[in-house]
Amino acid sequence: MATFGLVEYNDAGPEVRAVYDDIRATGKTDSINNFWKALASDPALLKRTWEETKRLMGPGALDEVTKELIYIAVSVTTGCPYCIKVHTASAGKKGITDAMLHELMSVVALANANVRLANGYQIDVE
Amino acid sequence: MATFGLVEYNDAGPEVRAVYDDIRATGKTDSINNFWKALASDPALLKRTWEETKRLMGPGALDEVTKELIYIAVSVTTGCPYCIKVHTASAGKKGITDAMLHELMSVVALANANVRLANGYQIDVE
Amino acid sequence: MATFGLVEYNDAGPEVRAVYDDIRATGKTDSINNFWKALASDPALLKRTWEETKRLMGPGALDEVTKELIYIAVSVTTGCPYCIKVHTASAGKKGITDAMLHELMSVVALANANVRLANGYQIDVE
Amino acid sequence: MATFGLVEYNDAGPEVRAVYDDIRATGKTDSINNFWKALASDPALLKRTWEETKRLMGPGALDEVTKELIYIAVSVTTGCPYCIKVHTASAGKKGITDAMLHELMSVVALANANVRLANGYQIDVE
Amino acid sequence: MATFGLVEYNDAGPEVRAVYDDIRATGKTDSINNFWKALASDPALLKRTWEETKRLMGPGALDEVTKELIYIAVSVTTGCPYCIKVHTASAGKKGITDAMLHELMSVVALANANVRLANGYQIDVE
Amino acid sequence: MATFGLVEYNDAGPEVRAVYDDIRATGKTDSINNFWKALASDPALLKRTWEETKRLMGPGALDEVTKELIYIAVSVTTGCPYCIKVHTASAGKKGITDAMLHELMSVVALANANVRLANGYQIDVE
Repeated sequence: MATFGLVEYNDAGPEVRAVYDDIRATGKTDSINNFWKALASDPALLKRTWEETKRLMGPGALDEVTKELIYIAVSVTTGCPYCIKVHTASAGKKGITDAMLHELMSVVALANANVRLANGYQIDVE
Repeated sequence: MATFGLVEYNDAGPEVRAVYDDIRATGKTDSINNFWKALASDPALLKRTWEETKRLMGPGALDEVTKELIYIAVSVTTGCPYCIKVHTASAGKKGITDAMLHELMSVVALANANVRLANGYQIDVE
Repeated sequence: MATFGLVEYNDAGPEVRAVYDDIRATGKTDSINNFWKALASDPALLKRTWEETKRLMGPGALDEVTKELIYIAVSVTTGCPYCIKVHTASAGKKGITDAMLHELMSVVALANANVRLANGYQIDVE
Repeated sequence: MATFGLVEYNDAGPEVRAVYDDIRATGKTDSINNFWKALASDPALLKRTWEETKRLMGPGALDEVTKELIYIAVSVTTGCPYCIKVHTASAGKKGITDAMLHELMSVVALANANVRLANGYQIDVE
Repeated sequence: MATFGLVEYNDAGPEVRAVYDDIRATGKTDSINNFWKALASDPALLKRTWEETKRLMGPGALDEVTKELIYIAVSVTTGCPYCIKVHTASAGKKGITDAMLHELMSVVALANANVRLANGYQIDVE
Repeated sequence: MATFGLVEYNDAGPEVRAVYDDIRATGKTDSINNFWKALASDPALLKRTWEETKRLMGPGALDEVTKELIYIAVSVTTGCPYCIKVHTASAGKKGITDAMLHELMSVVALANANVRLANGYQIDVE
């Protein structure tokens, strides 16, 4: 039950449709995630978030797989069930294997534990 | 000002020294981070945390650079100044360039923003 | 499935009923949110939390709309689905428009991103 | 000790200088916060973050004071000492009184407590 | 819908079965929580997490009840609905009364509020 | 550098002095923590927070030591350096041994790791 509902393609204005078309072309799929359909209730937010996400998550100094793993690490650490579900479900399409996801989860758990040990033991910045 | 002080090599018992020796051999350096010196006030915790960290952060389905980036992503998201300082300072030794760190920070910021948009817009799990 | 169940008005003792009556009178509605029905399993907690919430969320140096927006910002940042749902659903009654909620979400996302940039780049306190 | 150091105006290239000039003109001050000087080690990140921050934090459906209070609420909830320091120090210039800041802190504390009660009591979404 | 599904006893290999057997013997019950069934998709992670959890949550300098309360405090603070549900549901078996759980929730809420006041008022380390 | 400065006893009005007197009598010490001196810039907040803290942290269904450990667990999980410092420094006075603090840190680290595994593996509520 999204706060402002989900905007379907057929109900969308031209600004939203243009973003949806780019999402589909970029992802080589007809489907649009609910994340984008929900943001579409604020077309400027949709456009800005999509363009930023598309640009930053594409290849650069880091490859797309590494960026996707970082994105999931943040989603798992902060606890966003929707984000985790969508990004793990589509991981395979990007070439992320199950073994890689398992290691990702182990490293995220370790880092969250070690961060609390650093907090709790009040380690001095060296 | 660590909670229980820092244990220096010369003041350490044999169990702690064995871990310190392995830390030095693994990192090919004489220096021991304050994180380990603080955990050494509980030798069992030191040994367990070091062995787990060494094993999980080594190469596997993911390479060491990717794991290091994930570790920093968790440190930045949760806000651990000590962890960020130590892991960014040593990033170069592992082959992480400044350009890679810049992209890491941008992706972490983006993911933290998008997680809140997914929360705020109450996106349904699909 | 609340931890200790929900206490309905007809099953409540006089201490809980007195709080429920005040909640209804203050909100000008017959309905009681599940938050209060769940806290009612600990009547002292219910009374304390309601009185604190009523007093702090009422008008003062800040008006009620601003306080409600701050409350939602905290709920979105920490990820409390129940809190977000209840507080966005009732926002309209307090005079918060959809356009205001959209801007709220955008500012919360921006601040969560910028906090991580400040963390990641280890900005010195000036 | 910022991760990549701070970029001073005299050492900056034209892209960074253009942003610095706009920051100064917008803030009607000669000084540039360390946040911007640190981001300037990645000129594209600086430009993008400044433009987004300038646009979103300016007046819209919400006024600038309300947005500043929301921004501080996120900084306090996530625990960003630099962000809290800079934004509370400059609050007065935007017309935020001490009494308003005190109420802000009280509401942020209350919301953080109530979010945990909603978590702990596992309140059903209604 | 766990990321990699749940591994049932009859479908498990010998390494996972050995852990399941120990979980059952330790908990004096036939049932295995979904947490363990999900981790079992990575048998090494299952074994490591179970052994660490069993050892750390058993009696030591702190008794088992105190450790369980600390574990729930972390789950409530970070917002893990599954963890909260499982650990409050089984609290009674460990001798944790409803009155103790109520106080736990009140203290967790108080500490989360006070942490934000310490953040917001930028209290100096003394 | 507290947001509104620290209020010393000699500069305080009668409402703040009454709270300070109670803090001293309750703690059987002349010293007042900076936390209270900072909150004193808002006397109503000081009084409310002190009374709530005094009442909730005193013995009840849980003893004072257990409550103190829970309070530290929240401080370590959320990352509040001031809170951790003050509460670990005074732990001994309440009968909390170093061995108990070490176990506390280990359990907090474990719970923070397991919460992320529960998040990452998307464990169904049973």
